[in-house]
Amino acid sequence: MESGQPNSAAAADKTQNSSVPPVEGVAGGGTSYGWVDGGLQASSLGNGAIDPTKIHSADLLHVWSMPSTANVSQQEAPRPLEHVNLLAARNERESFQIALRPKVSWATSGIAGSVQVQCTDLCSSAGDRLVVGQSVTLRRVVPMLGVPDALVPIDPLNSQINLLPGETSAIWVSLNVPCGQQPGLYEGEIFISAVRAEAESRGESLTKSERYQLYKELRNCIDITEPRDYSSSEEMVQRLTSASTTLRRMLALPSFQDCQENNGLGDMMDEDIMNNVAVRLKLSLTVWDFTLPLTPSLPAVFGISETVIEDRFCLEHGTKADHPKAKEYYSDPRLAAYAVPYAPILSSTDAAKNSLRREVEILKSEAHWSKSYFYLWDEPLNMEQYDVICSISNELRSYASDVRILTTYYCGPSGSELAPSTFEAFVKVPNVLRPHTQIFCTSEWVLGTREDLVKDIVAELRPDLGEEWWTYVCMGPSDPQPNWHLGMRGTQHRAVMWRVWKEGGTGFLYWGTNCYEKAMIPSAEICFRRGLPPGDGVLFYPGEVFSSSHEPVASTRLERILSGMQDIEYLKLYSSRYGREEGLALLEKTGVYLGPDRYALDHGPIDVMRGEVYRTCRS
Amino acid sequence: MESGQPNSAAAADKTQNSSVPPVEGVAGGGTSYGWVDGGLQASSLGNGAIDPTKIHSADLLHVWSMPSTANVSQQEAPRPLEHVNLLAARNERESFQIALRPKVSWATSGIAGSVQVQCTDLCSSAGDRLVVGQSVTLRRVVPMLGVPDALVPIDPLNSQINLLPGETSAIWVSLNVPCGQQPGLYEGEIFISAVRAEAESRGESLTKSERYQLYKELRNCIDITEPRDYSSSEEMVQRLTSASTTLRRMLALPSFQDCQENNGLGDMMDEDIMNNVAVRLKLSLTVWDFTLPLTPSLPAVFGISETVIEDRFCLEHGTKADHPKAKEYYSDPRLAAYAVPYAPILSSTDAAKNSLRREVEILKSEAHWSKSYFYLWDEPLNMEQYDVICSISNELRSYASDVRILTTYYCGPSGSELAPSTFEAFVKVPNVLRPHTQIFCTSEWVLGTREDLVKDIVAELRPDLGEEWWTYVCMGPSDPQPNWHLGMRGTQHRAVMWRVWKEGGTGFLYWGTNCYEKAMIPSAEICFRRGLPPGDGVLFYPGEVFSSSHEPVASTRLERILSGMQDIEYLKLYSSRYGREEGLALLEKTGVYLGPDRYALDHGPIDVMRGEVYRTCRS
Repeated sequence: MESGQPNSAAAADKTQNSSVPPVEGVAGGGTSYGWVDGGLQASSLGNGAIDPTKIHSADLLHVWSMPSTANVSQQEAPRPLEHVNLLAARNERESFQIALRPKVSWATSGIAGSVQVQCTDLCSSAGDRLVVGQSVTLRRVVPMLGVPDALVPIDPLNSQINLLPGETSAIWVSLNVPCGQQPGLYEGEIFISAVRAEAESRGESLTKSERYQLYKELRNCIDITEPRDYSSSEEMVQRLTSASTTLRRMLALPSFQDCQENNGLGDMMDEDIMNNVAVRLKLSLTVWDFTLPLTPSLPAVFGISETVIEDRFCLEHGTKADHPKAKEYYSDPRLAAYAVPYAPILSSTDAAKNSLRREVEILKSEAHWSKSYFYLWDEPLNMEQYDVICSISNELRSYASDVRILTTYYCGPSGSELAPSTFEAFVKVPNVLRPHTQIFCTSEWVLGTREDLVKDIVAELRPDLGEEWWTYVCMGPSDPQPNWHLGMRGTQHRAVMWRVWKEGGTGFLYWGTNCYEKAMIPSAEICFRRGLPPGDGVLFYPGEVFSSSHEPVASTRLERILSGMQDIEYLKLYSSRYGREEGLALLEKTGVYLGPDRYALDHGPIDVMRGEVYRTCRS
Repeated sequence: MESGQPNSAAAADKTQNSSVPPVEGVAGGGTSYGWVDGGLQASSLGNGAIDPTKIHSADLLHVWSMPSTANVSQQEAPRPLEHVNLLAARNERESFQIALRPKVSWATSGIAGSVQVQCTDLCSSAGDRLVVGQSVTLRRVVPMLGVPDALVPIDPLNSQINLLPGETSAIWVSLNVPCGQQPGLYEGEIFISAVRAEAESRGESLTKSERYQLYKELRNCIDITEPRDYSSSEEMVQRLTSASTTLRRMLALPSFQDCQENNGLGDMMDEDIMNNVAVRLKLSLTVWDFTLPLTPSLPAVFGISETVIEDRFCLEHGTKADHPKAKEYYSDPRLAAYAVPYAPILSSTDAAKNSLRREVEILKSEAHWSKSYFYLWDEPLNMEQYDVICSISNELRSYASDVRILTTYYCGPSGSELAPSTFEAFVKVPNVLRPHTQIFCTSEWVLGTREDLVKDIVAELRPDLGEEWWTYVCMGPSDPQPNWHLGMRGTQHRAVMWRVWKEGGTGFLYWGTNCYEKAMIPSAEICFRRGLPPGDGVLFYPGEVFSSSHEPVASTRLERILSGMQDIEYLKLYSSRYGREEGLALLEKTGVYLGPDRYALDHGPIDVMRGEVYRTCRS
């Protein structure tokens, strides 16, 4: 009891006139409302069952928008609904979230109620459009380990979502601007209307037993009316009468009641619902005359576990390098770099070597060969492992002299006398691996908050020999530095790419995007691997876990990676006009990113920075 | 990076033979499964859509039991399924929980899948029964602010529950043993079967448009067959033929397809499903030959805010003391004590005084008058407030000399020189309030962990004058002491009553059971009052928030209060046989309760203590 006020009523009493005892009309102290006599005001909802088609949805639920960097939890508190204003270049995706929370329950079982989310196309005054379903997509934000993360697609033309009592739900809205989109101001609306839950409108349709009863009556009636030789007019009259009676009995079934009442016109039309009772979220998007490059300026490569996919979907391992799809995928301009499929040749059989040689020979004749690299060993720790890299490298370079090899590391080799200190040994790694590595890929964890150490790393590289410095994150660095673990802030996820741009690396590697536990069924529950921080190595999920769709389900973290890479394109544009120093100054002065432990905690600075690039770089 | 191992692959490498590089078959370091190659084994589920009626539910979901004191969160990890063994006296309620978590998803949209929970009656070998729906009830555990708390009734004969991907759900099972139940061992089973979601089997019933088509065809057919004067036999034949054609067209509707196929026998029978594919949870209950008293030994009183109910349900305030229902409720043997409805008479109009006098005169002639008390002022703080209590008391005692007055307090009056120290001033309160208070009700917060202070409080009381010592909890004491806030351990909730029994108070008061924020609609969201710990003052919820039911929804905390009060009956029985010292020793030696900061954290000791009472006290 920090406050020294063990009872609410006593505390409440402070705000009351002292002569009125703090008991309600009836004995039982402290049950009066106390500080806040707020809550819902008297309304027209009445005391009976709530028909959501007859009441404005704003009386039934809270609707408000949240930025893409917000983790909208089930306990997120409502905010006022405001007009959403976004900025996007061509070939950019910009996202935001709609948060929904029931004020009352209007469903009759289990849930608070269902809402329908309907989105219009976004139109410019010139008549150009961003079309719903293509350029505008909606996804439900589904929690993983209680943290909002999985983005499960929903039909943007007609999406019904169930809200639970006392829980905030979120919808992820993405605007994907095509490369050829005309710049301009695009406007649209999203209608959110409380509706009867599907399970309830089911009450209007026939139950199984009613259906079977109908079936029997119909068969019976057919027997009565079936063409045959009639013995008499009387028989025919009797049959007609009998059929008529049976038919009237069928029509009296409760299920046909509303057909009689509303003459089949159905409930109020969708249009009317949207105009009369829906909450309307107005949405404006400024598309500007900058086009993000088709190929990202920063090659960011992400590991995909083939084993995980093969096991879960019962697939066989291995595709030849000359498979037609291989050429299509490697040539895709959106792919900036790829690791050559590579089976370890340590066993050094001639067959293995020949196979690798053939693979290289096929690939090196292709234009996409310049994107390729070999990733031979993850984080070598000792000279024995370094020797393996050198030996494979010699083999590979005999197949193609311009082969690129990437090596990840966070320390120098143990067992060598490379340098007197740990950091110096780490910095001197290029001396050991040259010419057997071209992409020196170091862990951000090594730097910690010491951005100044970057210059020591870069000083050891030979750009004239094609050497590059890339970085990576995985288990480390941990909070508060940028990384992609579940439970970190949204800006912390996005900041990984701000960090890369500020530090000046020319590429980035992430170890895994689908590295959850083994399972043999497509829809098996996703279990994160033990020993890893939650979400580490998992950036998307199998669609089958969430619906009958086979489309993979992205995480909010994957979307924030994309946003971070798009931020790099904005910063690169700005720097191309005003110089890198000015670009760095923009990042700092807007408060977006000052260092690994000093960056925007909320979304505001991001929009300020992007707006400034727009203002200073357009036409 | 505490471990100095920034990358999972590097860590995994420790467990591998050193000469095999830690890359998967394909480049991209560290994506192999690492430490655990566990997960689901290959199974017969195959790669396509899952039909839950054809696969054993144990392949589709985890089912395990949890004690009533467990807070089963959405992240609760599965445990092995074990036989549930419970012990209960007659007139006792004993509860446990069934936790459910999907292993795979078998629904096609939004949820992982639906399960049906079916419970048999519990039967003894002598043929006695505990009947499902009456003595056996099922409730869904619904989170409030993310903490499992609300217990929403479900139909025990046929309950369908939706499971979400990656989330554990819980069902609260209560066994209510009637007073007249024969002692013995009762056995039953609970069948948990994965089923098609209701929304999916809906496909089998008629859509609205099909239904309207049927309606029109039926009307058409009635027009054709309706009795009239027919001009000729030909007309009748034509009409019969036309009717027959129309009827055949109706029968051809897709909705009647399965009626033809399975001849109306429907899907596999429930019995078969239960026997073939359901997970079976075996349940044994030992009913022993002890009957809990109808009237609880410890009068525990709980405030109910009438204002909250009146506002939410649009009710008018006030019921006369001579209302027939008043007598029924006050006379209910399950009610141990009640506060007399009391409008403050400070304004002291004659009308108010006369009304109060009439109320007392009506009540004091009833047998239930002995249960009554007046609660005049909540936590008086100064002599002015003490004077008000005395003055009202004088008025009341002029109406009925045996009136009982309860006063809550956590300190002595300020502005008096009662005693040199704060605690002594608190202890001396009876000297100030005698004879204007009979029930001295003190906050447990005052004691803190100093149980020894109890004797100082009790020493000041005059049992010969009918004076009693009761206690209460509200905002305080806070964690780790026992209280009923959301987010505390289940044993912490139950320990409030263990504490009462150990300290020896003869009654208990809780300030509020429905003191959430104001709302004017029955199904309005429950908002806890600002400034209070979550759950404080709220022990049940309006049913309308969770379903169309008007039945109030209990919290897990309310159930644990009941369990604690039942524990008191066990301890009282034991003490009546072996003495209070032995009862206290039992509480300690089983590890159930040693003090306000030392009590069972898990359920085990509770069953040990109850089992010991059963073993030593039966027959």
